[in-house]
Amino acid sequence: MAFFDLPLETLRDYRPDVAEPADFDEFWAATLKEARAFDLDPVFEPVETGLTMVTSYDVTFRGWGGHPVKAWLTVPKYGDGPFPIVVQYQGYNGGRGIPQQQIGWPNYGYAHLMMDTRGQGSGWLIGHTPDPVGSGPQHAGFMTRGITDPAEYYYRRVYTDAVRAVETARVAPGVDGTRVAVGGGSQGGGLTIAAAGLCGDLVGALPDVPFLCQFERAIGLTDADPYAEIARYLTVHRQQEEQVYRTLSYFDGVNLARRATAPALFSTALMDQVCPPSTVFAAYNAWNSADKDIRVYRFNGHEGGSYDQSVEHATWLRSRV
Amino acid sequence: MAFFDLPLETLRDYRPDVAEPADFDEFWAATLKEARAFDLDPVFEPVETGLTMVTSYDVTFRGWGGHPVKAWLTVPKYGDGPFPIVVQYQGYNGGRGIPQQQIGWPNYGYAHLMMDTRGQGSGWLIGHTPDPVGSGPQHAGFMTRGITDPAEYYYRRVYTDAVRAVETARVAPGVDGTRVAVGGGSQGGGLTIAAAGLCGDLVGALPDVPFLCQFERAIGLTDADPYAEIARYLTVHRQQEEQVYRTLSYFDGVNLARRATAPALFSTALMDQVCPPSTVFAAYNAWNSADKDIRVYRFNGHEGGSYDQSVEHATWLRSRV
Amino acid sequence: MAFFDLPLETLRDYRPDVAEPADFDEFWAATLKEARAFDLDPVFEPVETGLTMVTSYDVTFRGWGGHPVKAWLTVPKYGDGPFPIVVQYQGYNGGRGIPQQQIGWPNYGYAHLMMDTRGQGSGWLIGHTPDPVGSGPQHAGFMTRGITDPAEYYYRRVYTDAVRAVETARVAPGVDGTRVAVGGGSQGGGLTIAAAGLCGDLVGALPDVPFLCQFERAIGLTDADPYAEIARYLTVHRQQEEQVYRTLSYFDGVNLARRATAPALFSTALMDQVCPPSTVFAAYNAWNSADKDIRVYRFNGHEGGSYDQSVEHATWLRSRV
Amino acid sequence: MAFFDLPLETLRDYRPDVAEPADFDEFWAATLKEARAFDLDPVFEPVETGLTMVTSYDVTFRGWGGHPVKAWLTVPKYGDGPFPIVVQYQGYNGGRGIPQQQIGWPNYGYAHLMMDTRGQGSGWLIGHTPDPVGSGPQHAGFMTRGITDPAEYYYRRVYTDAVRAVETARVAPGVDGTRVAVGGGSQGGGLTIAAAGLCGDLVGALPDVPFLCQFERAIGLTDADPYAEIARYLTVHRQQEEQVYRTLSYFDGVNLARRATAPALFSTALMDQVCPPSTVFAAYNAWNSADKDIRVYRFNGHEGGSYDQSVEHATWLRSRV
Amino acid sequence: MAFFDLPLETLRDYRPDVAEPADFDEFWAATLKEARAFDLDPVFEPVETGLTMVTSYDVTFRGWGGHPVKAWLTVPKYGDGPFPIVVQYQGYNGGRGIPQQQIGWPNYGYAHLMMDTRGQGSGWLIGHTPDPVGSGPQHAGFMTRGITDPAEYYYRRVYTDAVRAVETARVAPGVDGTRVAVGGGSQGGGLTIAAAGLCGDLVGALPDVPFLCQFERAIGLTDADPYAEIARYLTVHRQQEEQVYRTLSYFDGVNLARRATAPALFSTALMDQVCPPSTVFAAYNAWNSADKDIRVYRFNGHEGGSYDQSVEHATWLRSRV
Amino acid sequence: MAFFDLPLETLRDYRPDVAEPADFDEFWAATLKEARAFDLDPVFEPVETGLTMVTSYDVTFRGWGGHPVKAWLTVPKYGDGPFPIVVQYQGYNGGRGIPQQQIGWPNYGYAHLMMDTRGQGSGWLIGHTPDPVGSGPQHAGFMTRGITDPAEYYYRRVYTDAVRAVETARVAPGVDGTRVAVGGGSQGGGLTIAAAGLCGDLVGALPDVPFLCQFERAIGLTDADPYAEIARYLTVHRQQEEQVYRTLSYFDGVNLARRATAPALFSTALMDQVCPPSTVFAAYNAWNSADKDIRVYRFNGHEGGSYDQSVEHATWLRSRV
Repeated sequence: MAFFDLPLETLRDYRPDVAEPADFDEFWAATLKEARAFDLDPVFEPVETGLTMVTSYDVTFRGWGGHPVKAWLTVPKYGDGPFPIVVQYQGYNGGRGIPQQQIGWPNYGYAHLMMDTRGQGSGWLIGHTPDPVGSGPQHAGFMTRGITDPAEYYYRRVYTDAVRAVETARVAPGVDGTRVAVGGGSQGGGLTIAAAGLCGDLVGALPDVPFLCQFERAIGLTDADPYAEIARYLTVHRQQEEQVYRTLSYFDGVNLARRATAPALFSTALMDQVCPPSTVFAAYNAWNSADKDIRVYRFNGHEGGSYDQSVEHATWLRSRV
Repeated sequence: MAFFDLPLETLRDYRPDVAEPADFDEFWAATLKEARAFDLDPVFEPVETGLTMVTSYDVTFRGWGGHPVKAWLTVPKYGDGPFPIVVQYQGYNGGRGIPQQQIGWPNYGYAHLMMDTRGQGSGWLIGHTPDPVGSGPQHAGFMTRGITDPAEYYYRRVYTDAVRAVETARVAPGVDGTRVAVGGGSQGGGLTIAAAGLCGDLVGALPDVPFLCQFERAIGLTDADPYAEIARYLTVHRQQEEQVYRTLSYFDGVNLARRATAPALFSTALMDQVCPPSTVFAAYNAWNSADKDIRVYRFNGHEGGSYDQSVEHATWLRSRV
Repeated sequence: MAFFDLPLETLRDYRPDVAEPADFDEFWAATLKEARAFDLDPVFEPVETGLTMVTSYDVTFRGWGGHPVKAWLTVPKYGDGPFPIVVQYQGYNGGRGIPQQQIGWPNYGYAHLMMDTRGQGSGWLIGHTPDPVGSGPQHAGFMTRGITDPAEYYYRRVYTDAVRAVETARVAPGVDGTRVAVGGGSQGGGLTIAAAGLCGDLVGALPDVPFLCQFERAIGLTDADPYAEIARYLTVHRQQEEQVYRTLSYFDGVNLARRATAPALFSTALMDQVCPPSTVFAAYNAWNSADKDIRVYRFNGHEGGSYDQSVEHATWLRSRV
Repeated sequence: MAFFDLPLETLRDYRPDVAEPADFDEFWAATLKEARAFDLDPVFEPVETGLTMVTSYDVTFRGWGGHPVKAWLTVPKYGDGPFPIVVQYQGYNGGRGIPQQQIGWPNYGYAHLMMDTRGQGSGWLIGHTPDPVGSGPQHAGFMTRGITDPAEYYYRRVYTDAVRAVETARVAPGVDGTRVAVGGGSQGGGLTIAAAGLCGDLVGALPDVPFLCQFERAIGLTDADPYAEIARYLTVHRQQEEQVYRTLSYFDGVNLARRATAPALFSTALMDQVCPPSTVFAAYNAWNSADKDIRVYRFNGHEGGSYDQSVEHATWLRSRV
Repeated sequence: MAFFDLPLETLRDYRPDVAEPADFDEFWAATLKEARAFDLDPVFEPVETGLTMVTSYDVTFRGWGGHPVKAWLTVPKYGDGPFPIVVQYQGYNGGRGIPQQQIGWPNYGYAHLMMDTRGQGSGWLIGHTPDPVGSGPQHAGFMTRGITDPAEYYYRRVYTDAVRAVETARVAPGVDGTRVAVGGGSQGGGLTIAAAGLCGDLVGALPDVPFLCQFERAIGLTDADPYAEIARYLTVHRQQEEQVYRTLSYFDGVNLARRATAPALFSTALMDQVCPPSTVFAAYNAWNSADKDIRVYRFNGHEGGSYDQSVEHATWLRSRV
Repeated sequence: MAFFDLPLETLRDYRPDVAEPADFDEFWAATLKEARAFDLDPVFEPVETGLTMVTSYDVTFRGWGGHPVKAWLTVPKYGDGPFPIVVQYQGYNGGRGIPQQQIGWPNYGYAHLMMDTRGQGSGWLIGHTPDPVGSGPQHAGFMTRGITDPAEYYYRRVYTDAVRAVETARVAPGVDGTRVAVGGGSQGGGLTIAAAGLCGDLVGALPDVPFLCQFERAIGLTDADPYAEIARYLTVHRQQEEQVYRTLSYFDGVNLARRATAPALFSTALMDQVCPPSTVFAAYNAWNSADKDIRVYRFNGHEGGSYDQSVEHATWLRSRV
């Protein structure tokens, strides 16, 4: 049914219990420490794109396990640099695409780093980053890779990459590394929350219709992928429910939002069956900053505010940096 | 089935008979003359967008019937102007959107005029141009508005608008009006063909997965909208088949392609059930210029080459202007 | 889910708040006055149909804007005339069809006027009435034509036509113009409510599974067209929600039912996802007459009581005229 | 795909081989003889319907096995009787409905007998005739009841009922039993062909989009029910293919059409996936009378010519009786 | 939506009112007495299967009306016989299949009788038992055969067959007839409940995701077949609702569970839209034995616990016999 | 459409060109040599299952890269051992399941080894074997893991595992290692062909509705997964078509069938849209042994002959070993 989730008035104050493991902070501290044992080793290689008003770089940095992760850096040629930068994460099954697509933020006067998502990039937007790590039996897709153990879960590697992308942005050419914001939609919104929960000193966070929040509710509320990948996995691995939810608790956007202190502008859509609005509000209401706001698109599905939300982004960020 | 249309080798030489009314040229000459009886009256109103490297204008010109038609003009702030310009037409149900979306061609060093499609702009991209003309009984959608009479057919107005948009581009601020190209995907591809068939002196035409070509084959080959709107209309108006096809013959992209002399770069996709590849090749093979090429995307549906095709566009056009 | 709406016991007393504009009555008084500035000019042209027991007329009258609206008048050849008459309105996308279909009421001893719906009549039943009025950007279908302004909304014209059809029935040949009833299903049910709310002196109203009632609830409750056309329009025109709902409030069947005083027999179906039962009860419970009843079909969808309800109609109306 | 069957030019001469069992005529002669061992015993009970211009009768006659079969007889009250009569058979899953629906032919000046289909009448139109015969294992629906043996096949009973309905019509009150026509759509079209192949002395046959023709091609060409019921049965009863096709050959409309000598007006629709046009032309081209014609609806599906075809019926039959 | 039924905590105590006819016990006593007027006449014919460790018998016994009902008996060749036996009933549209499939329980050291379901066995698993009883008008499928009268309802025959199968098992060769358990999934689960409610002296009952429980709720809660067959029947037979529910009350698994005293192991799945979990808990909570348990599969649909549940079965039954 | 592929008569002789890389044999020789550099290291651990007539072992052997691969070994307790053995491979997304399911072949007097498919086993049947190898960007599922390079392609690992499973079977307890057959359905059928093409000395091969044959035709003929995973990958990786097809040529069942010399019994189904019958016949007709046969199921989809085919298997294999 059209409005399938809680009414908006209820959502405004929706603050569900989401289990948080006792060693949540240790887990992430250890994970990041382990990753930082590898040099970040950022490489920014200029590429010829035919674009006349920006400079594009093919970026490689060391993410989780020291694995090379690709990104595109795009810097305005005109305006007063060094520029503040927006680090962007991609939606599920998409990759970083091509450099000619990365001109949105630069045309607003920001540098922009579009991170590739390891292993993804074959569904709707091309990617170039391998995920050189195998897994136990998994359901098709990325949601259940290594899901029986937080240490082996796919998103442990991706969240770590997201943090390392912020570190890469700080040292990128033409960039003012003290002014870094993060953003993205759907999976990219989930990664935005993760990055904001795991990095300090961000000037803004822009999660749109974020995925990866309040897994238990999401799985019981929607039949839509990618949340449903986990449900289908559990139809076969009937004994692993507790184990799976334990793993997911280390990655739940609600737990990460509790640790995020950057100013934030969220968005959600009330007919979004992919990332139900209650799960988005769960993260939004947990966000640990008074400087936060959320745009609600009543009649939209997972496309959310789309290009209208992009204008909101630009206006909101301009007022800060 | 996956490859549902003719094999590629056959498509290369596919030149079907498409009926052309004896008074085709008179019809269009009269139509344009009638439209030009109204002053073009182009207005270019600068708008504030937050974009730092382009200048945006809210454009109004007089299209068919002297009706005001909206567009966005976007001109690079940097580089050596006056700039050549690409006039773009939109896909079915979409409108001109917002000015912040129009930065693709300007970032390649071209001015850009995005024409609104009258009455449309409520399906996936916002539009702002009314179609102040009613119609007889019609099927939902735009395909059957006035379909019983070429003089009253919806696309008579839209094709005319497309020509007037070219005329508007020629006099736009910061633009070199002698170097105008046209382009668009799907319905926008059909309008590109129409503009190229009805305007001389274009430096290029870029129709992607074009719609509005070889109607009779398309309607018998695919159940997909919007071609199927016509079939559904005829399920009720069983006696109007001949009349409907007569009307459509004045608007068939194959007949317009025969009159188009600009250099052209087409694209098509072999799994495109919305605009089947044979109907695209019918127009391509009829195109009246030796300087033409077509990109074939074998595994894609109606999305065609998407962002990869955009890069093809830029490279191809750069080599000409 | 099967029973997706409120339980029947709750529906019996369901009386939701539906916003009513302060100038509702002025709006409609002005609209009708404006329409009546044009002569009704009813023309009843006998047509040869091959039918042996009824006389058929091709009817034209002046509706909104003085535009010609078509209808079929069918009068029994046998029995004691002049006959009471039922004015019927058609479902969405359908037209008046052909005269040979109009024999239901005449075979019960009533004259019958089947009004064409302007612009419609190409979806499942043929129509012959143009809607010579254009509109701003709209979604495919009729629901969003002119939806930003009550004065320009498509249904302003159609509701007016419905009233004028009643006036035409009163002066039709072989008809007792003092005994006029109105009826129809789905959109025809909505028009029945409109006619009954805007005309006095009706001997009965027969709205089946009526559409166009309590828009706000309907849009949030069902994904089915045609209500969903409005939702999809608002996915793009994100800023127009308030404006759209304001327009719709002038056309909401609940507001019109409050003004309807004719005896009424409604019907609804509990599995009807097109016109959800709660929205029907909202209108039924608001109906301003003690002489009213409603048939509830528990297991049906939008087909409702179908031919069984037709027998209910005949029995109910026979007991009154 | 839209036009999924052979092109119309090919269909015009499509005369496939359809297997005919050597004892086809003996089978049907014996079947009818066996049925006629029971008295026809027609009962015509007047019913009160509220209709003012026709007389309605609840009819019972003895069909196959002497089982009571229900029908509605409807006779005009006005005009010069005794009237010629049209016997009509119903589409799949439908029953005879209610008497108030049976006024179409009477309003053209014909009596009308609507035969109930035993066991059916619970899908879209109510029925009242049991089929007091069980069957071996069957797929849901009626197509595979007793399909392993022609003597036990469901349609042996129904075809016999169809013949007995003609015999009932000949003795009905107010009817001129020398002028009997048969008609129906879909399954009703198949029964029309069967009745015309098994009865002499009919003044006309009106099969629309007939079902039950050239089973082998139909099953291989369409996934649509009810033909597909047989295919699904054979997915389980893998060893019965030959046996099943042998049974069906006694019931194939092509074999029955070869024996039909009445004047005939067929109809078919080129996008009809339920009863593909080639299977209809197979029967039409086999029809054993020079006085035959077929209406082809190019863009329609299984609804075929619908009400337009009804007008064709009336005109065609009027010119004969 | 994913979890569409009541929450698990609520289900644990879900004890709805289900109407029970006053003569429920008389009805079944009379039915069984009538059936037992025919000799059971069990025949066990050894069949050659190629299987090396079990003996297979093609079984025929007299079920309702003395009609022959087929089954497969499979007895271990090795181990200490005579063996306890599990009588199994099949899911909807399936038959007894082939003897080579019946080796599951024998490999656990139990004899096994797989009963054929009369008339079924053409949907996914072959059957060989006719249902030599016709019916009034019915919807496709088996749910509405004779549904207007408990005495003629299809499941009266099948429930009786299920009881007679238990009696057959008691006298089967190589079997210890004092140790009989019953089991099955979906329709087989419903029959398991029926057999346990109508037979004494069973050592266990194993209903998985049982069908045929709390009809009224099921029909209002799910659109899935086979429950929906009844709803669709009632869309046409609008006047029969009360009559239909009266019939069903004699067959409702909740009423039968109240009379079942054998130890039981149920299973249900929380995403099962075919046999919603609340309807299963309704029967489970009504079950008249303290020795009962239920396995709940949270993420599964109608497949429930599948092979995992089979292991549960074996373990549970081993601990009892 | 129902029969969507070539007619059966054409299929009987269908021998398409399938590209074979010049170094095909070297590639596989090197691959197997590399794998055999690791000890096979088979471990057979008895497991308690509750089954009374077979012995079950949890098996681990070293597959590609020396990675541990799981399997179940099931050996009859009764009959004259050592027993011949059937090695079985699983369908796509399934794992080895549980030992209690593995009793089919043992009950016919054969030992049985069910190999787990690395990484799979979370779709419909549980698996326990990790695939500890990552990949470049891939589409969801397994078809495109490492697809840009034959050396890194997922199926290089799985095909190698399949060969190593045969080697494991040869040394299994209670087994006569000189009499090994292979079999499986769908992906399991493709692995059967691979094993038979890469291993000598097999006594039989039983590929049912095999997958992984004639990729190029399959991808152009069906929209069904898993073939379509490759097509969707290529919608994004538009430049990799040639590279992808080159990789696949090393794994094409047609090329492997050319090298297979064991007696074989294939099966295919003419309505199978997952593994189209032409692609199966392409492999069957290429099979390099005169002792081969194929069962054709005309009306079935991808389920093919199901349990009927299992009986065919047993009969066919019994006549050989």
